Amino acid sequence: MCKFNTDMADERVDEYKVINNMSEIDGIEVKQQEYEEFKVTEVNVLNENGEKAIDKLKGKYVTIDIDGIKYLEDETLLVEKIKEELEKVIPKEKSILVVGLGNMYVTPDALGSKVVKGVEVTRHILKLSEHFKDFGTRQISAICPGVMGNTGIETTEIVTAITSNVKPEVVIVIDSLMSKSFSRIGSSIQISNTGITPGSGITGINSKIDRESTGAEVISIGVPMVVDIATIANEIMDKLEYEEESNDRYNKIKGVLQTQNYIVTPKDIDDVVEITARIISTSINNIV
Amino acid sequence: MCKFNTDMADERVDEYKVINNMSEIDGIEVKQQEYEEFKVTEVNVLNENGEKAIDKLKGKYVTIDIDGIKYLEDETLLVEKIKEELEKVIPKEKSILVVGLGNMYVTPDALGSKVVKGVEVTRHILKLSEHFKDFGTRQISAICPGVMGNTGIETTEIVTAITSNVKPEVVIVIDSLMSKSFSRIGSSIQISNTGITPGSGITGINSKIDRESTGAEVISIGVPMVVDIATIANEIMDKLEYEEESNDRYNKIKGVLQTQNYIVTPKDIDDVVEITARIISTSINNIV
Amino acid sequence: MCKFNTDMADERVDEYKVINNMSEIDGIEVKQQEYEEFKVTEVNVLNENGEKAIDKLKGKYVTIDIDGIKYLEDETLLVEKIKEELEKVIPKEKSILVVGLGNMYVTPDALGSKVVKGVEVTRHILKLSEHFKDFGTRQISAICPGVMGNTGIETTEIVTAITSNVKPEVVIVIDSLMSKSFSRIGSSIQISNTGITPGSGITGINSKIDRESTGAEVISIGVPMVVDIATIANEIMDKLEYEEESNDRYNKIKGVLQTQNYIVTPKDIDDVVEITARIISTSINNIV
Amino acid sequence: MCKFNTDMADERVDEYKVINNMSEIDGIEVKQQEYEEFKVTEVNVLNENGEKAIDKLKGKYVTIDIDGIKYLEDETLLVEKIKEELEKVIPKEKSILVVGLGNMYVTPDALGSKVVKGVEVTRHILKLSEHFKDFGTRQISAICPGVMGNTGIETTEIVTAITSNVKPEVVIVIDSLMSKSFSRIGSSIQISNTGITPGSGITGINSKIDRESTGAEVISIGVPMVVDIATIANEIMDKLEYEEESNDRYNKIKGVLQTQNYIVTPKDIDDVVEITARIISTSINNIV
Repeated sequence: MCKFNTDMADERVDEYKVINNMSEIDGIEVKQQEYEEFKVTEVNVLNENGEKAIDKLKGKYVTIDIDGIKYLEDETLLVEKIKEELEKVIPKEKSILVVGLGNMYVTPDALGSKVVKGVEVTRHILKLSEHFKDFGTRQISAICPGVMGNTGIETTEIVTAITSNVKPEVVIVIDSLMSKSFSRIGSSIQISNTGITPGSGITGINSKIDRESTGAEVISIGVPMVVDIATIANEIMDKLEYEEESNDRYNKIKGVLQTQNYIVTPKDIDDVVEITARIISTSINNIV
Repeated sequence: MCKFNTDMADERVDEYKVINNMSEIDGIEVKQQEYEEFKVTEVNVLNENGEKAIDKLKGKYVTIDIDGIKYLEDETLLVEKIKEELEKVIPKEKSILVVGLGNMYVTPDALGSKVVKGVEVTRHILKLSEHFKDFGTRQISAICPGVMGNTGIETTEIVTAITSNVKPEVVIVIDSLMSKSFSRIGSSIQISNTGITPGSGITGINSKIDRESTGAEVISIGVPMVVDIATIANEIMDKLEYEEESNDRYNKIKGVLQTQNYIVTPKDIDDVVEITARIISTSINNIV
Repeated sequence: MCKFNTDMADERVDEYKVINNMSEIDGIEVKQQEYEEFKVTEVNVLNENGEKAIDKLKGKYVTIDIDGIKYLEDETLLVEKIKEELEKVIPKEKSILVVGLGNMYVTPDALGSKVVKGVEVTRHILKLSEHFKDFGTRQISAICPGVMGNTGIETTEIVTAITSNVKPEVVIVIDSLMSKSFSRIGSSIQISNTGITPGSGITGINSKIDRESTGAEVISIGVPMVVDIATIANEIMDKLEYEEESNDRYNKIKGVLQTQNYIVTPKDIDDVVEITARIISTSINNIV
Repeated sequence: MCKFNTDMADERVDEYKVINNMSEIDGIEVKQQEYEEFKVTEVNVLNENGEKAIDKLKGKYVTIDIDGIKYLEDETLLVEKIKEELEKVIPKEKSILVVGLGNMYVTPDALGSKVVKGVEVTRHILKLSEHFKDFGTRQISAICPGVMGNTGIETTEIVTAITSNVKPEVVIVIDSLMSKSFSRIGSSIQISNTGITPGSGITGINSKIDRESTGAEVISIGVPMVVDIATIANEIMDKLEYEEESNDRYNKIKGVLQTQNYIVTPKDIDDVVEITARIISTSINNIV
């Protein structure tokens, strides 16, 4: 099994195909659609073979690509599109817990906590007053579990402790992702109806946040905010035309890097995270 | 029973005595000691009568008063004193969970989250390696549950969910407190070996964080960061010499205030919170 | 001359009328207009007598009142209204410097810095490339001078130092204001085409930011984020029906308060500031 | 002239020697001293030839190296050492302006603003009262000019506008630096008595902050918080033993990288910046 240098399902599919010199993967279905404002890629992982191939859980991964979130003329189109995709996978009236992963004190990893800050929670109000239920207000709560380096506790321990108490029907997990492509930072939103697999993202989670561990439908929203340093090194060598097969070399690079504790991110990451968080929290606030 | 406008045990004792025109309260013992750098007041709530009198759980409340934390020439003396008091109530080698209460996005209420940021957690390292235990490293973890207005979940729900999972032997709760006296803001540290009673502080907690709910010894560290608006109004009227008994009037003032959602705090509260958090987290990091 | 406990022109007018038992003030013209979504009050200070009466510089003060910025169904209407008012006073194509006053580390005082963060600056791009001018891009720059307690430098010293170098044609000053009414916090936006008078707001500015000191047209945008503690005390006494004329008593209250260094603000001020900043920066980014 | 991928004078000296196969550089003098707790390297740039060789202004660059600022048992030794070095270059009683460079919203670039927050300013107090001068209190002020991407104004424009008004005798500039070595992040403090040269750091400054532009003695304190991505790629290739001279390859790598807008930084950069800022601001507050 590949060790992927990206959290994006579509990038993994492409990488797997190149490495294995395939044009199709059994158990993986990919659809693409171009809109005026965005490109939507849907990766369906259909069976265990597909799961193994791209090391992603069975389910649907929808990626919305735009031309740089900082340069959107009109954010409402993207908000509407994300809301639409969320409504496809989140049943009406079901109670929601939004989980903002990541380290709020490190800019590219602060997406989750910023989305949580922007989400309009209702659970405590509904608990206080039956009145609001008549209006069809959905129960929404939200937490930031923090990162293990700051809490000493695995993120999943915190999340499952809370879900076993709060008992939400749907968990929406927000996280900063790693992509292979620098240009995808703040330009791509991945929405999936699967749990989050161990070791994903830059948050160092070690166990699954999924239906089994939370008792809820788990929806993930992730946006690339960092790129893998080995990918960059490898791309550089590609461009320098070193004669060697790229994937072999990538693994060698991984081998010589003594730490995985690097973050590679653009200088204007503060703006990117701020705007992305606003768009995602607005989308969540708008779902009916 | 009085509805107190302060979270400080010693202020409640004084208030109770004045209102009831007593010089002693059955079930309450007060000791004071003057040091060169601080004054230490110890309030012992000995029985149920004492509990009722000042609406505080049975146990010991130690208050360290200094002359303004911003103007300390040498912080190490205070760090040492807090560490000493913590070591009196925290048994050696017991595992600790530090809980930073309050809203990190509102300056006077951010003390808890700032202390958590400064605490050196070890639990995840000890879990990974038995090696560290040989050095007698204590297991420390830390969380910020957030506030109900942002999470939709009661703080105690989150804390007890986590304690029932992480199973710490000691919980140290950090919170911003309300005092009657403006001069006590950032000048007084209250340490108690009791849980936190409902509705204390400005965090709007509604149920107890105590041995029963957490299964752990609960130590509270609180520092006044806000004052009660009714107290201030009442003090003003005292000074204006309106003829009326102060406590009656205070209750009337409470009656006409339509909301409790005010915060009264000094303009330089950012510095006060920053320095206090540093001193408390250093004290916690230093305990053996 | 009155010492006012509010930065809002319309509140000063009302207060002045009550105190002096007048229905009209020479040199002051007030117009009100009700819209479906907001109430707009325009105070015109026409001459020196008006200036003296309400201690505000000659010019126009437009106040837009809404029912709580946190509960707006649709922010775009308010954004459009603020943009419209700004376009009335800011000539097309003129270069703008946005100045975010206040202490970014104290939540109710962070409005200015948050607006600055949201403003899309262009000056450096225009300097690099003549190309953008063809599209009619306006020159925009933005600074946060900080507060004297943190910098040791008067805010106006910093602002005038920068304006004398950057030479903007228009300066937009953003500040947190003090109101007499708790309900106006985050519910009222005051836009004026005059400079800012000494000692206004909670920022402790000591000299004018106006055409004379900056060489530019100065537009101020302010939103109440704190209320005056003496006002609250006085309102309480009003409600308690102490027999005494309110204004006399207010001055007595001021007399007994030993410090002006209090902030009185709502507990959810973090949300209020965040949303208000977003609305104001979007309005500024939209002006043509 | 070399285009260096580091802001550290000693790294540039080493690089220059390797590239040019020299053991000595005319105009550069290097001394090293080992202490129990730190290693101190002093690079003296003596003449124009030295300036050209390492593209650093004439003057003294003192680098204090420690074993990871996060793991210091006792911060006071380092505080004392920095204070000592600062006192060598800052004359007694001279007025100081501390300038915190960088983007406070991007974690590795927030060192400057965090130091400024910790500095105890006195200028405004001295202006109000002659009294303090008797105690020999030094005049200290502090500003954060922000970054061009947020202000639209070049950092030096803001700094020189303020120095020409405030007229400090000494300017201490604080900045996050770039190093060639990942292990040096948060482990090395460079203090120099020269101005800052264009394009240094990750702040994208374009003109000098020096005696000429500020009218003051300029002292710089910098700490590596990021590493150059090309260096990392090159080191990887070194370890992979690609047969090619390292420097040639480095330049090729630079050539194929299409943007310089990457930041490479460790995941725990939040702690590193926090602790470093505390140590530097304490050192500045302690100088006499």
